[in-house]
Amino acid sequence: MGYERDAIARMNGYEPGKQPQSREIIKLNTNENPFTPCQGVMAALHQIEADSLRRYPSPMADAFREIAAKVHHITPDNIVAVNGGDELLRLMLTTFVDPGKPIGIIDPSYSLYPVLAEIHGSPVVRVEANPNWSIPSNLARTMNQASVQVTFVVNPHAPSGCLASVDTIAALASELSGVLLVDEAYVDFVDPEMHHDLTMLVNRFDNLILLRTLSKGYSLAGLRFGYGLGAQSLIQPIRTKTADSYPTDAVAQTLAYAALEHRNEAAKTWQLVREERTTLCQALCDLGFSVPTSQSNFLLCGVGADATRAKSIQETLEKRGFFVRYFDHPRLCDKLRISLGTPEQNQRLLKELREIVKG
Amino acid sequence: MGYERDAIARMNGYEPGKQPQSREIIKLNTNENPFTPCQGVMAALHQIEADSLRRYPSPMADAFREIAAKVHHITPDNIVAVNGGDELLRLMLTTFVDPGKPIGIIDPSYSLYPVLAEIHGSPVVRVEANPNWSIPSNLARTMNQASVQVTFVVNPHAPSGCLASVDTIAALASELSGVLLVDEAYVDFVDPEMHHDLTMLVNRFDNLILLRTLSKGYSLAGLRFGYGLGAQSLIQPIRTKTADSYPTDAVAQTLAYAALEHRNEAAKTWQLVREERTTLCQALCDLGFSVPTSQSNFLLCGVGADATRAKSIQETLEKRGFFVRYFDHPRLCDKLRISLGTPEQNQRLLKELREIVKG
Repeated sequence: MGYERDAIARMNGYEPGKQPQSREIIKLNTNENPFTPCQGVMAALHQIEADSLRRYPSPMADAFREIAAKVHHITPDNIVAVNGGDELLRLMLTTFVDPGKPIGIIDPSYSLYPVLAEIHGSPVVRVEANPNWSIPSNLARTMNQASVQVTFVVNPHAPSGCLASVDTIAALASELSGVLLVDEAYVDFVDPEMHHDLTMLVNRFDNLILLRTLSKGYSLAGLRFGYGLGAQSLIQPIRTKTADSYPTDAVAQTLAYAALEHRNEAAKTWQLVREERTTLCQALCDLGFSVPTSQSNFLLCGVGADATRAKSIQETLEKRGFFVRYFDHPRLCDKLRISLGTPEQNQRLLKELREIVKG
Repeated sequence: MGYERDAIARMNGYEPGKQPQSREIIKLNTNENPFTPCQGVMAALHQIEADSLRRYPSPMADAFREIAAKVHHITPDNIVAVNGGDELLRLMLTTFVDPGKPIGIIDPSYSLYPVLAEIHGSPVVRVEANPNWSIPSNLARTMNQASVQVTFVVNPHAPSGCLASVDTIAALASELSGVLLVDEAYVDFVDPEMHHDLTMLVNRFDNLILLRTLSKGYSLAGLRFGYGLGAQSLIQPIRTKTADSYPTDAVAQTLAYAALEHRNEAAKTWQLVREERTTLCQALCDLGFSVPTSQSNFLLCGVGADATRAKSIQETLEKRGFFVRYFDHPRLCDKLRISLGTPEQNQRLLKELREIVKG
């Protein structure tokens, strides 16, 4: 019997996707952007002075919040900067959920949500995603009946890539009696022709927080930088009370600022990812796999009804140096989640898959 | 009525020391090392490649833990890396304290401890520091009687700089029925002739965690990097369960590694700080102030019984461009905490203080 709380002793920790450090591996398992961060970000890194490291950073990342406010046409008071999006997910519980009270999620979705709930001592109310992965119409009703204080919705949905519209999210925020956290980790990859933009909802609802990250769209997964957008009444207690004293560091603040400043460069990678998404989706379907339309930087590839096949393909690929993600979940165990790589990586993956399918 | 928990609505957030961004100000208020980080750290910063930013970092900072294990003659399993020492303080509650159960502190000490307790829903059991700032002999007994699950002791003590010996800490760990967190934020500045080293206790006690930070000793407050040392049974649930999924970023991991690799360079600054500590302490005493012996990089300067004088001197100094720290606390309101600056900064501060005393 150790010193940790019983709940901690009983639980399993979050299992991050494998992070092999070898550059030989074609790593399509954790949804990084396959293209490197832009020159402007690297230049900002190389210009950092010793004295910026020596001093404490801006406690609330003021300069970053200024530029993010301009990008999103809101005010810095609507923004909180965090040490990676995962930190905001934790802070949603710390700030808005009484220990013992439930949180709500769509099942399946990001596997970290239930882990955070377990640490916090919150039961999890699950509503199953529709067969086409869209948001079930009974979601708000179920959450309200269970007195859920925060509902987590990842949009585009993970691991399917299915996008809920602005109207759907607005209706959900309007109907929910608790707070709605929309995890927009992958929103940068949505086709711009869809004119999908939830930021306009921030000033319409006092119970809506949007989570953005620089990990995916801005190719900065190594940096751990995310931010939340929401009504001041929601953001202010997070920024000034429940967040750690200096949650983001001076280097991350500087590079995050540069990333938004050079946003057009990142946007070029989003377009390249979208082009690859179309190409790879078609090629996987040609191989006989079933792949739902994705607005994200990954594809959920159904490989057939035999429940052992997905796991077996994933293991074969791993032996050949290709990492893709397998989830041991009733709705996912016959599928693989494949992050979109560079054109060359995707072609090499296809070649392997063709051999596996033939063999 | 907002959506935040009642406890959050009621509380005040932690007030970080002022962080003016102007380089004109002589900033002696938040205990940064006055000397810049070494060349080895800056070289590591400038060698970071775009691809390290693009990928997720090592989830548990494996390379850093390897070098830290070598430095401290323990194993990587005894170490957890965190996003600044404050994160480990929070994780001590998350991991070891049942909501509603108390934590223990010495009063006064680091003002963040009670804030973290309030967020967590923990009452705070306070034992007053001895008049000479040493640890009171009834500390363990009081904590045990109150079923305290974690006791926080900052050593060297802040804001006095008073050092508790290895024997004192060992006796405390031995007597406490809960976990003991020794916050060693300032330990690098202890006179090496004292042969003070608590790391040897890590394998002797299964209820002791030492907190180290690179913010002070290594001149990296801007980087937010700290680590905890303790028995595997204590460290493992923090590292694999309660910590965020990727708590430290790729840049911070690389620079922290370089900082330990070039530890001898940082150690030169510790010696310079110690020399300044002796000089400034003597000069302040010559001005009629009372200053206890400090083993840290700050001095607690008693300016006289009149309770308004300390605040007034702090404000006068601030107008003249010198930031020092004033605490509104019964034992501290007649004192100023002065971080040790460079020799030139300390001389300029003394000149101002001489004028204020004369005036």
